[in-house]
Amino acid sequence: MNKGMTKVTALYPNSEGKKFDIDYYINKHVPMVTKILGDAMIDAEIEHGIGSAEPGALAPFAAIGCMYFNSIEDFQSSFGANAEQIMGDIPNYTDIEPVIQISEVKL
Amino acid sequence: MNKGMTKVTALYPNSEGKKFDIDYYINKHVPMVTKILGDAMIDAEIEHGIGSAEPGALAPFAAIGCMYFNSIEDFQSSFGANAEQIMGDIPNYTDIEPVIQISEVKL
Repeated sequence: MNKGMTKVTALYPNSEGKKFDIDYYINKHVPMVTKILGDAMIDAEIEHGIGSAEPGALAPFAAIGCMYFNSIEDFQSSFGANAEQIMGDIPNYTDIEPVIQISEVKL
Repeated sequence: MNKGMTKVTALYPNSEGKKFDIDYYINKHVPMVTKILGDAMIDAEIEHGIGSAEPGALAPFAAIGCMYFNSIEDFQSSFGANAEQIMGDIPNYTDIEPVIQISEVKL
């Protein structure tokens, strides 16, 4: 359904002692980003890490946020111009530095 | 749309010199897994890494495969019983050991 789209994912690597306020992320940060990106962002998905392959192990990522765009240019023009405001909100919900993945959806 | 679902993601960390045969992954591995998991897997998405936040940088992950289930039990019962067959196919397309993330879809 999203095949062919540009998917930009922010992954928050987990480790003991790190904080991640999932409520702030979902109720404040994501709505702010959604408003800023406007029509350029076609879809989004937010997930909260609960585990890994080994029972009881920490999830590799505390949370993951996926954003879908029609093209990498749509991402760059909408996100790039507002990167400072978006990135500046990160300390309000986590002390983890996100990893940014840019992918093409193949299936 | 997938809110509340259990999302299981296989992430293939990228580094120079690693191989990942995206064609085999999409045309052979994913169809095999889809068949094995049957109705337990509600949806799937496959992405191919093309970049990161810095222009020209390697994508953090060569590829990412997402699988959606109604519950973690549905994942465990369908995947667990066939893990050996599924994992045994990995060397056919990559020398990267995948990271497994289990999440709850929040949005």
